[in-house]
Amino acid sequence: MLKIAIDAMGGDFGPEPIVEGLIEALRNNINFTAIAVGNKEKLLKLIPPTFLNRIEILESEDVISMHDSATDALKRKESTIYKAIELVREGKADAVVSAGHSGATMSLATLRIGRIKGVSRPAIATLMPTSENQNTLVLDVGANVDSDAKNLFEFAIMGQAYAQSVLRLDEPIIGLLSNGEEESKGNEVTKEAYKLLSKIPNFGGNVEGSDIFKGTVDVVVCDGFVGNILLKTAEGVADTIGKIIKKSLKRSLISIAGAVLMRKVFKNLKVRVDYAEYGGAPLLGVKAPVIISHGKSNPKAIKNAIFQAINAASSNLDSIIEQRLVKYSTKEDTL
Amino acid sequence: MLKIAIDAMGGDFGPEPIVEGLIEALRNNINFTAIAVGNKEKLLKLIPPTFLNRIEILESEDVISMHDSATDALKRKESTIYKAIELVREGKADAVVSAGHSGATMSLATLRIGRIKGVSRPAIATLMPTSENQNTLVLDVGANVDSDAKNLFEFAIMGQAYAQSVLRLDEPIIGLLSNGEEESKGNEVTKEAYKLLSKIPNFGGNVEGSDIFKGTVDVVVCDGFVGNILLKTAEGVADTIGKIIKKSLKRSLISIAGAVLMRKVFKNLKVRVDYAEYGGAPLLGVKAPVIISHGKSNPKAIKNAIFQAINAASSNLDSIIEQRLVKYSTKEDTL
Repeated sequence: MLKIAIDAMGGDFGPEPIVEGLIEALRNNINFTAIAVGNKEKLLKLIPPTFLNRIEILESEDVISMHDSATDALKRKESTIYKAIELVREGKADAVVSAGHSGATMSLATLRIGRIKGVSRPAIATLMPTSENQNTLVLDVGANVDSDAKNLFEFAIMGQAYAQSVLRLDEPIIGLLSNGEEESKGNEVTKEAYKLLSKIPNFGGNVEGSDIFKGTVDVVVCDGFVGNILLKTAEGVADTIGKIIKKSLKRSLISIAGAVLMRKVFKNLKVRVDYAEYGGAPLLGVKAPVIISHGKSNPKAIKNAIFQAINAASSNLDSIIEQRLVKYSTKEDTL
Repeated sequence: MLKIAIDAMGGDFGPEPIVEGLIEALRNNINFTAIAVGNKEKLLKLIPPTFLNRIEILESEDVISMHDSATDALKRKESTIYKAIELVREGKADAVVSAGHSGATMSLATLRIGRIKGVSRPAIATLMPTSENQNTLVLDVGANVDSDAKNLFEFAIMGQAYAQSVLRLDEPIIGLLSNGEEESKGNEVTKEAYKLLSKIPNFGGNVEGSDIFKGTVDVVVCDGFVGNILLKTAEGVADTIGKIIKKSLKRSLISIAGAVLMRKVFKNLKVRVDYAEYGGAPLLGVKAPVIISHGKSNPKAIKNAIFQAINAASSNLDSIIEQRLVKYSTKEDTL
């Protein structure tokens, strides 16, 4: 039976939404148990007695806050996130979910759990909604800056493997994010990456920012600096459109009546763009599944993050990534 | 009196929307005349006789199409865009507006009109709407890739000068687009650019993708590869949200009734995100105002692009940029 480690205290809202999400996940899936890392007294108050046989608590009171630096986090061996990751390192858990300090989670996972053979830099992947009721996996959305062509090639392999073995897509197509579709478009790094990616089956060439939301390809590869800006831009636009609609609404009673009638439409829209639906962002390239959840995760987001961790832990993602990195790298690339 | 040169044939929809937009502009502003470059016979059919005393026609039948390469365009000296730009070079017009091949416009403007002293690379600037009924000027959105720190510094000077002397903002604040607000965030180039930008008054530090739509700063500076992706991402998200709303609407009569009542809200939303409101994107860093309009520009977009050209031509933008580049560059930077 799979065992999932959870940093139960790291989120912005304390242990409540995390534990609630965990209970929901346990209720919906009887094939796993959990180790919650956090203050025993506080956690015990939140866990219904009937679930105590499926949740082990590992005591820790030290929580890395958003204001701490990721490098400091590496030294705080008694912290919830350090201990949760150590459980995976020691083989006591199969995967880890954290809504805590994402930089700390990333650094600790990379250093303590370790990288898959052949991976230079792990990357954070995230799902973006398309108008066609599907999703596009985008990576890297913030683990790295100044990625080189070889890094982007590795991201492509990792993203495609994840889309295939965890998201269960049949033959996922990869796109390389660029400033135009033509092969001639791109900056120095992406032009070089284009050549490396051409060796991978189902490489769909360059894609533009708008293609992510059209669902032109299944996996979009980019540098983490660009990916972070892309993610924040998308959130900013969605947020602004929401605000403009709300402001305009206030100006007329008729519009308010209209909005009431359109409730379902807005609810549907919210579901499509709500990150809680996807749970969290997997850190790809480390030896065990690590899911990085948003600090403001609600119980639903945590539940879905746990399901993601379970799906990844049930797959052979690591070995697929390792094999393909060897298969599609030519000798000169790996030198 | 100002004279504006217009590539009357370069847009995706032929001369009709261009001429219609020009007429609208002439109707609303009596202080300029125009030179329309294109097929005389076709254009004469579209121009009401009362406007013929304010529109001069310069014959040209060769139109650079979207499929032509920008380098080919440099050789076609009889093309509408070449001739329109040459009018500015020869001092026969004060500014130029083109809805044609943007790469060709950019290259021709840079090579034929020339760069302002001290500018290494011209940049394309565009206005993005914020939820606060204001706009953020973003540059570069596609003229350059692989910009270095000095290029970004120049973009900042050019953007701030444009915001001040053309958009009439009092003390425009500049932000440097990065993957986080802290000074420590960024890639190699933006970290170096941060130091250079710190010499400019009203530098607001690093900003994130979402800040553009919050209106945190007035001018956002980035490399053109990133800016293009940002722009396409923003368009993609807005488009997707529109599609999701439309799709959901079809599922219920009540929602349709709601949408009818909310017409004004949607109209308001459309106005806020419609590029036609802004007209076109100025190419900053060349010696005369060059406005690059969308290929699919409607008459309103062309009208507003012409007004932008007039505003820029009435300002002392060029000399402000030239002076500030000297003023805020230290000796070692300019070497």
